[in-house]
Amino acid sequence: MGSFNPSDTRAGKVITCKAAVVWGPGQPLVIEEVQVDPPKKMEVRIKILYTSICHTDLGAWKGLNENQRAFPRILGHEAVGIIESIGEGVLDMKEGDHVVPIFNGECGDCVYCRSEKSNLCEKFRVNPFKSVMASDGKTRFSTRDGQPIFHFLNTSTFTEFTVLDSACVVKIDPKAPVKKMCLLSCGISTGVGAAWNTANVQAGSSVAIFGLGAVGLAVAEGARSRGASRIIGVDISPDKFIKGQAMGVTDFVNPKDLENPVHEKIREMTGGGVDYSFECAGNLDVLREAFLSTHDGWGLTVILGIHPTPKLIPFHPMEFFDGRRLTGTVFGDFKGKSQLPNFATQCMRGVVNLDGFITHELPFSKINEAFQLLVDGKSLRCLLQL
Amino acid sequence: MGSFNPSDTRAGKVITCKAAVVWGPGQPLVIEEVQVDPPKKMEVRIKILYTSICHTDLGAWKGLNENQRAFPRILGHEAVGIIESIGEGVLDMKEGDHVVPIFNGECGDCVYCRSEKSNLCEKFRVNPFKSVMASDGKTRFSTRDGQPIFHFLNTSTFTEFTVLDSACVVKIDPKAPVKKMCLLSCGISTGVGAAWNTANVQAGSSVAIFGLGAVGLAVAEGARSRGASRIIGVDISPDKFIKGQAMGVTDFVNPKDLENPVHEKIREMTGGGVDYSFECAGNLDVLREAFLSTHDGWGLTVILGIHPTPKLIPFHPMEFFDGRRLTGTVFGDFKGKSQLPNFATQCMRGVVNLDGFITHELPFSKINEAFQLLVDGKSLRCLLQL
Repeated sequence: MGSFNPSDTRAGKVITCKAAVVWGPGQPLVIEEVQVDPPKKMEVRIKILYTSICHTDLGAWKGLNENQRAFPRILGHEAVGIIESIGEGVLDMKEGDHVVPIFNGECGDCVYCRSEKSNLCEKFRVNPFKSVMASDGKTRFSTRDGQPIFHFLNTSTFTEFTVLDSACVVKIDPKAPVKKMCLLSCGISTGVGAAWNTANVQAGSSVAIFGLGAVGLAVAEGARSRGASRIIGVDISPDKFIKGQAMGVTDFVNPKDLENPVHEKIREMTGGGVDYSFECAGNLDVLREAFLSTHDGWGLTVILGIHPTPKLIPFHPMEFFDGRRLTGTVFGDFKGKSQLPNFATQCMRGVVNLDGFITHELPFSKINEAFQLLVDGKSLRCLLQL
Repeated sequence: MGSFNPSDTRAGKVITCKAAVVWGPGQPLVIEEVQVDPPKKMEVRIKILYTSICHTDLGAWKGLNENQRAFPRILGHEAVGIIESIGEGVLDMKEGDHVVPIFNGECGDCVYCRSEKSNLCEKFRVNPFKSVMASDGKTRFSTRDGQPIFHFLNTSTFTEFTVLDSACVVKIDPKAPVKKMCLLSCGISTGVGAAWNTANVQAGSSVAIFGLGAVGLAVAEGARSRGASRIIGVDISPDKFIKGQAMGVTDFVNPKDLENPVHEKIREMTGGGVDYSFECAGNLDVLREAFLSTHDGWGLTVILGIHPTPKLIPFHPMEFFDGRRLTGTVFGDFKGKSQLPNFATQCMRGVVNLDGFITHELPFSKINEAFQLLVDGKSLRCLLQL
């Protein structure tokens, strides 16, 4: 694994390979042969080694948002792979490089990429409505009979080969354990980055995390690595606490065990509230509890959960005069291409421990089984080997 | 002015003096004789030299919020004065000191005062529900026949003499021009501080200010002093632009002149939005325009307006993923006792120009006239001389 055989290169030619195609909302993924075009200018073609599934894939699979539907489609945005071939103009990568796809790209040249304050690239920022390549508005995937297959989230990794804009591909140290690097594509970077970059959690501070899925646990791992002294996990499943302890969760609050609102309990536990809270549940009532769980005067709440509801946030403007702040985070505020390689190094050094996040491993052919594990809340990350 | 005659001291004795008393919601203020008790432990009694009127006084006068009503009451929270006598335990001030009352006090010892991140003192933070002294829950004001007269906002400055907790009194340089120091009590500090402390406006950045009253213009002055290159004032009154130009407003947008929403105009003018926006109107629709007027990726909106509406803020949680942030500010995030003296020094040096904010001067006896000037939007600050 991780080696590259020059015979794998079919530069300039269409590759026929297997991919998991979704033909309609909620329909089982079909592993079938697809055609993958060569990369065009500033694009690369990648041989995927491992991919995993995140809740954003589930949302797109179910077609929760009608405006974002595009079928047939190849989903997937967490992966690790090897550059098979490069398009014209790509200078920062070459065939054989180990790479991680990122759904939130970095062109390096726009007003956002040139700002220290933002990781939202003008052209390649996360965009759930996008289903074709940026350069020509076309797909690089097609069925054997030539029907276009849509892309997903700048990535599409549920396939043996995929084509990405080079702005959405990060070259990583070939000595890094390739399997684990898959986790850096999305969820774990989002959680750790929310603690490191967005909130800038300080040593000795207190943290509450609402929702202990993979992202929430990654927040815990990020806060633990920063030296937070109190990390309170909030979840309705007691199983999550066992998992969470390994990631640094020091206290567990199950809303089902309480008569009063969670924020009252957390304020009581912490003498007024935590310094930082993280909402990883995608639920407005939870978001309000997270907001009120922070200490007035300086508490910061970071929104990580995806909120499909049309409802607005349940806060009164005067509540912001209590000194509590609210912010969102995309990809943990990591600038993918320029900052993810260092994060990978931190993981290799053991600053962040990735092991606990891989709960299952399956062959790619069992992708529907892996979907079900996530739907049932049984897995954090199930690695699919291609 | 500014000198202190020892014969003014009536330490330990009740003082009978004139005050403007409000007897019911919206009723004209009555200048009448009141009795002012000596200061108790950790309190001071102040001879008010000048006072001015702010919109918060108007709100309390009208009794907009039923739960905050308390009559008879002495309103007023912007003033400058001289310490007449001090209560037991007061060590940082003495008779004759020039002082500015602050509605948002600083005890110096609570968890908030000890934190660098907050100016919300546990005991003396702004509290519109409070109408008595903290130490004994009683008033220091009474009518000539002994009926208690309620306090307002830790201050009550519409009186020749007032009693305040020493945590709510800031000693200032006796060389500072006493008349102008009145402005530091509330509105101007709030506006300048929102630019300096809350937003930390950077040189060369762009700013939009929604509502060009005294507070909004003070934001402009704060942004100008920080070297902001573009300061866009938004107001439905063209007169405000003339005033604003002196405070650094470079562009004026009148929503009445536009067919499209203000934020579209501002994004067009600035190539994507301003770096910072300030909402000084107390209106939710305006707040939304202010939020959308900032550049995605890093825009910060600061709420300064008081929102009496029961309605919630009209934002969807996913909008926070565009990298726009929202925060409130109380007293411009100045810690009153420890940071206001330096602000006064900056004003003396001309870093901030206070002159333009004093649009009218009247004797204290004409306080109802001064109220009307503010109600009619004719004054920024009308100084009342006692």
